[in-house]
Amino acid sequence: MSVNHGTRRARLAAMLGEYDVDALLVTRGVNVRYLTGLVSSNAAVLVRADGSAVLATDARYIETARRVCHDIEVTERRDVAGALVQAAGRPGIESHDMSVAEYHRLGGDLTPVERLVERLRVVKDEAEIDALRTACEITDRAFADVVGTIAPGMTEKRIAQALEARMVELGADKPAFDSIVASGPNGAVPHHAPSDRPVERGDLITMDFGAMYGGYHADMTRTVALGAVADWQRELYDLVREAQRAGRHALAPGVDTETVDAAARDLIAAAGHGEHFGHPLGHGVGLEIHEDPFLRSSGAGRLEDRVPITVEPGVYLPGRGGVRIEDTLVTRAGGPELLTRTTKELLVL
Amino acid sequence: MSVNHGTRRARLAAMLGEYDVDALLVTRGVNVRYLTGLVSSNAAVLVRADGSAVLATDARYIETARRVCHDIEVTERRDVAGALVQAAGRPGIESHDMSVAEYHRLGGDLTPVERLVERLRVVKDEAEIDALRTACEITDRAFADVVGTIAPGMTEKRIAQALEARMVELGADKPAFDSIVASGPNGAVPHHAPSDRPVERGDLITMDFGAMYGGYHADMTRTVALGAVADWQRELYDLVREAQRAGRHALAPGVDTETVDAAARDLIAAAGHGEHFGHPLGHGVGLEIHEDPFLRSSGAGRLEDRVPITVEPGVYLPGRGGVRIEDTLVTRAGGPELLTRTTKELLVL
Repeated sequence: MSVNHGTRRARLAAMLGEYDVDALLVTRGVNVRYLTGLVSSNAAVLVRADGSAVLATDARYIETARRVCHDIEVTERRDVAGALVQAAGRPGIESHDMSVAEYHRLGGDLTPVERLVERLRVVKDEAEIDALRTACEITDRAFADVVGTIAPGMTEKRIAQALEARMVELGADKPAFDSIVASGPNGAVPHHAPSDRPVERGDLITMDFGAMYGGYHADMTRTVALGAVADWQRELYDLVREAQRAGRHALAPGVDTETVDAAARDLIAAAGHGEHFGHPLGHGVGLEIHEDPFLRSSGAGRLEDRVPITVEPGVYLPGRGGVRIEDTLVTRAGGPELLTRTTKELLVL
Repeated sequence: MSVNHGTRRARLAAMLGEYDVDALLVTRGVNVRYLTGLVSSNAAVLVRADGSAVLATDARYIETARRVCHDIEVTERRDVAGALVQAAGRPGIESHDMSVAEYHRLGGDLTPVERLVERLRVVKDEAEIDALRTACEITDRAFADVVGTIAPGMTEKRIAQALEARMVELGADKPAFDSIVASGPNGAVPHHAPSDRPVERGDLITMDFGAMYGGYHADMTRTVALGAVADWQRELYDLVREAQRAGRHALAPGVDTETVDAAARDLIAAAGHGEHFGHPLGHGVGLEIHEDPFLRSSGAGRLEDRVPITVEPGVYLPGRGGVRIEDTLVTRAGGPELLTRTTKELLVL
């Protein structure tokens, strides 16, 4: 399926009525991409209440912009925000993106509008879900190809490199984020950076990684055991797997995000590990690796249909190790669609 | 050589006297890393005029923070800026980083301080240059290993993937940025994203890529010919190579950045291609792929000693193709140190 950026701009234009503005100056790179298709480190787009739009970018991107954004006005300028403010009457700005310095440089009399395009981006169209599905397939295949090569003595860094290289070979744009490989006691650190530690018999190894494809971010975590499994490791794994299952089953359009979080968190708390699960249960994925909505214990509204989201409970025992299991799914009226399909049985290598 | 983050914080503290503040709230991730060593997507550090500091980060990074930042106070909080503003008297903020929305959320009565840590980061210590040298060595080796495999029919994407996979195998943290591979007419687009176009006999192929190592970004571009070289291609290549050499030779502590830019740009303009070289001659590299100083036609001050910087003139002929040649160097009193050492003779594959 193909993407219609004009439709997205029209939906944004229709939302501007909530604010006292006649246009929105979109400066956040990922939002510019969403609304125009242009990938650039220096571009902005002004979307007017009548649905018309002007894009500004500099000499490095101007040829690409003229080709990709053939249906809107394109202007060349290094100071992209400055160029577009002049083309607007009473523009709103993305106040969560524009810096204080840039705001003052532009004259300072601009209406703050917060996370409007982000709100629009929550519910995905099927073309976006197709890209994400491909990203998750690449992630699954890379895991399958690499997991069998893990052996005592291989460092965390080497495992991360193998996963990332394989994803790129399989057609990923690039890794969706810096991969996490945390073995043995390092598993107690949720966002551990892969180190030179060689994995050992008796380790749990947590791998959190994913492919980016067409700009969309897959996110998957699996924890495996190397050589042997101690009782405490098996118990921890089973607990996290049950919690993850409960979280997945709670995902449905119309459900409060905090209800989903609680479905998993309550199981972990009941097992006495509430304090060892210190992060949210999950987050939206799309053009960003972390985007709305978030599954947290303090609610942030209800889920909608066609929202890609992760479910990733973890238990982290300081000094000992940890387990995290994560899938990327899409909310659907008939039950969530599972995009990362790697087994969640405990693999003992 | 090892890094002393305390020394960096002391140098920052000494600069605060220029402003009416008693501390700087550092929120920009790369600056937090520079001042503390912590790599985190959610951390901030408050550096006081007396040199003391407090770091805040959330549950995902707190264990790492306590280990890496053992010499300063560390506090756990999701709202990292909020936590630190409370710990300050009259703090300055990084106004080029903090969003308008965050500024208002924090109460709005904070002194804007622009690019102070960035200024500190311009001149590198030898530990930083060591990391960058390794990044450039990996980049050179990846080029040497991959260039011989390029043959007609290989797509731009495949070449980019091969370079990136090889850099990671050679020990890179990851690619320093999204690689550019632009063949034939695509060479006319300075920041072309690698496409499914297969390279053909008669193409010039521009490859702009680099490794990140220890957080430091290498940046190199080479343009090669496939199978045969037309006279116009050879002339264009020789012109850009001469301009690049002139730019490199102009690099020295105490020289105006615009003088360096002009050394290369004037040669290209004299050959009638001034309008086909639409970007700056170069940029600093370090913890960011683009950082101060920039080599532009409108001056931005003088070069100092020990400043890693790129020299990368290009000529882009719309519809036909282009040539760019780029090195990463370090300014030195005795003449620039060349970090990317791949030949600049025209390789005909």
